[in-house]
Amino acid sequence: MEMPKVDPFTLAKKDRLIARLSEVLPEDAIIHAVEETRAYECDALTAYKCPPLAAVLPRSTLEVSAVLKICHEMDIPVVPRGSGTSLAGGALPTADSVILGVARLTDVLEVDYDDRIIRLQTGRTNLSVTGAVEADGFFYAPDPSSQLACAIAGNIGMNSGGAHCLKYGVTTNNLLGVTLVQMDGTVVEIGGAHMDSAGMDLLGVVCGSEGQLGVVTEATLRILPKPEGARPVLMAFDDNETAGACVADIIKAGVLPVAIEFMDRPVIRATEAFAKAGYPDAEALLIVEVEGSEDEIDEQLEVIEKIARSHNPVELRRSTSEAESAAIWLGRKSAFGAMGQINDYMCLDGTIPVSELPVVLRGIGELSKKYGLDVGNVFHAGDGNMHPLILFDANKPGDLELCEEMGAEILKLCVEVGGCLTGEHGVGVEKRDLMHHQFNPGDMEAQLRIKDVFDPKWLLNPAKVFPLDVTAARRG
Amino acid sequence: MEMPKVDPFTLAKKDRLIARLSEVLPEDAIIHAVEETRAYECDALTAYKCPPLAAVLPRSTLEVSAVLKICHEMDIPVVPRGSGTSLAGGALPTADSVILGVARLTDVLEVDYDDRIIRLQTGRTNLSVTGAVEADGFFYAPDPSSQLACAIAGNIGMNSGGAHCLKYGVTTNNLLGVTLVQMDGTVVEIGGAHMDSAGMDLLGVVCGSEGQLGVVTEATLRILPKPEGARPVLMAFDDNETAGACVADIIKAGVLPVAIEFMDRPVIRATEAFAKAGYPDAEALLIVEVEGSEDEIDEQLEVIEKIARSHNPVELRRSTSEAESAAIWLGRKSAFGAMGQINDYMCLDGTIPVSELPVVLRGIGELSKKYGLDVGNVFHAGDGNMHPLILFDANKPGDLELCEEMGAEILKLCVEVGGCLTGEHGVGVEKRDLMHHQFNPGDMEAQLRIKDVFDPKWLLNPAKVFPLDVTAARRG
Repeated sequence: MEMPKVDPFTLAKKDRLIARLSEVLPEDAIIHAVEETRAYECDALTAYKCPPLAAVLPRSTLEVSAVLKICHEMDIPVVPRGSGTSLAGGALPTADSVILGVARLTDVLEVDYDDRIIRLQTGRTNLSVTGAVEADGFFYAPDPSSQLACAIAGNIGMNSGGAHCLKYGVTTNNLLGVTLVQMDGTVVEIGGAHMDSAGMDLLGVVCGSEGQLGVVTEATLRILPKPEGARPVLMAFDDNETAGACVADIIKAGVLPVAIEFMDRPVIRATEAFAKAGYPDAEALLIVEVEGSEDEIDEQLEVIEKIARSHNPVELRRSTSEAESAAIWLGRKSAFGAMGQINDYMCLDGTIPVSELPVVLRGIGELSKKYGLDVGNVFHAGDGNMHPLILFDANKPGDLELCEEMGAEILKLCVEVGGCLTGEHGVGVEKRDLMHHQFNPGDMEAQLRIKDVFDPKWLLNPAKVFPLDVTAARRG
Repeated sequence: MEMPKVDPFTLAKKDRLIARLSEVLPEDAIIHAVEETRAYECDALTAYKCPPLAAVLPRSTLEVSAVLKICHEMDIPVVPRGSGTSLAGGALPTADSVILGVARLTDVLEVDYDDRIIRLQTGRTNLSVTGAVEADGFFYAPDPSSQLACAIAGNIGMNSGGAHCLKYGVTTNNLLGVTLVQMDGTVVEIGGAHMDSAGMDLLGVVCGSEGQLGVVTEATLRILPKPEGARPVLMAFDDNETAGACVADIIKAGVLPVAIEFMDRPVIRATEAFAKAGYPDAEALLIVEVEGSEDEIDEQLEVIEKIARSHNPVELRRSTSEAESAAIWLGRKSAFGAMGQINDYMCLDGTIPVSELPVVLRGIGELSKKYGLDVGNVFHAGDGNMHPLILFDANKPGDLELCEEMGAEILKLCVEVGGCLTGEHGVGVEKRDLMHHQFNPGDMEAQLRIKDVFDPKWLLNPAKVFPLDVTAARRG
């Protein structure tokens, strides 16, 4: 790939920037050599790449504030970055921007088991939050597939979910407060450590705002006592729609599994070949997991299995051991990787009302025929968060474009049935132009005004979320 | 009480207003005769009274929009009103304002059991939401004590909770979307019917904003399947602090009761005399209720009773029948009324971290001695929402003032331990000057800016929430 051209004016500005950053950060926290900025040229959406002007790795809220203040004064755009696992280009730099990475902000600041909270710096990885409290019998609920690597900062930016979020909710339901550094360097506290914080509730606006409003350096999260036990049941069906109808019936019945995961034949086959999870060879597979004591588990699974039987499953198999349960989950968590071994794919992230699952699965099947591209479906069915994987051949000219076009049609279908473009991956760069399908000009304007309030100069995470024509008009 | 003086200029303006309102509303929806506006001179905080210029009772979102547009053009303040059950003066008129009552907006617009939602007009009472779905086995979870009368519009305005919100959350956790009419008449949709709505999440800002940002005319609420069964256990203790410590231990243990209610001796006695609930005569009483199947109930109650026994209760009694359970709850729900029969009281609404319950109960006891005023404590202990009732004699000169001073000290104590001024009653008129204790000027400014965005002319629900000195400076 060609280096993007950076004009001499920008280079002179870069020198001034590095000089000023050196006044507030130690030398090892500033990355500006061209070879080294390459490490930050993309996130997990590797189709888009652009090295930033520089990257900084501050170690405290005060350092973050100092960096933002300098960039604000110099009119330099800033791209906040967690661990860079975004599938939507949420941490993609522009050539004139500074990457602000939170990777060194990893401290646990407070654990309070009486109030069941943990306060920490947001560079900490998702899984290591649970790691900090599990010896005492607690855990942090949201569990994105990337939880080994992804940072809490990114989870907050994208309002991430995960397989077990049907019961426990997504990030916004487990986030109690944040320390937010605004673009001008101002540090504000939003929310707090307990049920109902004082004043107007801006926490919801910040959660899921994709780095458009500020940089979250610290967070207070809810932790929960680990359940006594958990057990999954596998259900296989003859077609996707029946599996979708079964999910809708389980939700309607009011039992609350911790997870309902959906996989269709292409995904089942690839996963079984890769992870040997013991999955049946069927058109559609559901993994339904419940938690509690042995009695509670049995009682819930009986209700769920009764519903499943009414949909004539080709297989219905309750896990009988810890090892079997672990194999079932290893399969599901390997599914994306397994698909990646045998195909190039594009992963979508539409969210729909649960009752529309059968309709949307049928629609995806029809689009698959129309475009001649196979689709693997693997997703959190319980809360309607779809992750269709469109399979294509990156070496075949035109295939990626066809795939992008088909992806857009699937997401439009999600919007049509009352859903939205993204559940947890974010709009990022990937879906910014589809925002016109979700929002009319008035609704878009409302969001732009919020951005105006938090970031009047429009320096934070540029060229993301909003369509470029809208942003261009806004910035004049 | 004297009629507030209304100057001739205002009266002329009133005539013009009524003429314009008559163009958009039927005659029976406009109340302007001075005798009739008296019906709207106060809410449940009856210490403050002031008849409005007029009151309107629109029947649709379009009518609400038309009224707001007229008032916006004429610079006439508007006070939105649900059922007028506010304990903090949240619906108190000013003499130059129009009361906009939602009492006639009572339609159910959509019930969807597959997605477990109900969409309705917000004048509908809280209890009648459950009424609309209970024949099909569903209910709406938040249950304020005033649920027979209070409107969903008010619940959204104050982010109301209730006894059973420990498990199910407060209004904000059960609200999925709203139709908001802005002061200039613009109608906007915020949120939606499913898990994750598109765009920035403004729902949290609107919920609990006390009518400062717009009028919510329609709402989409989450409904839940009714649990199989429920059973309370009574626990009595020798002192308040031990009961408080027991609550903190139950929360910490991770069992999730649907309710943990706290009553101290003055309240137990008054309630027992009034409702004959069979309460023991003790210093402090907890009602802990769990839900589920018979097995689940037994299992949870065993854990809870084990914790209780470790605090040496003077009585520990599990309900053994439906009738006994009903009597226990009738007592709790009558507690405020029972106290009102024998005392004048002021009801506070501070919210604190659960772990601080013993500290705050001790502090309230010390303030009670200092001021020579008795306090009855009856509150939702599980989520830290305190409702101390300060007893006073309305006929004794100076007693109310003493009571107000003591109330302010209790609320300051709540703020000091990390809590806030109000859990569900709102700041309203009652606590607006205490906001200086909760917020520094920078934090207050942030809230004022939000108000500026939604209501630039500052016409909505005037003289509430923000301290008058701050508002005066703002409006210039």
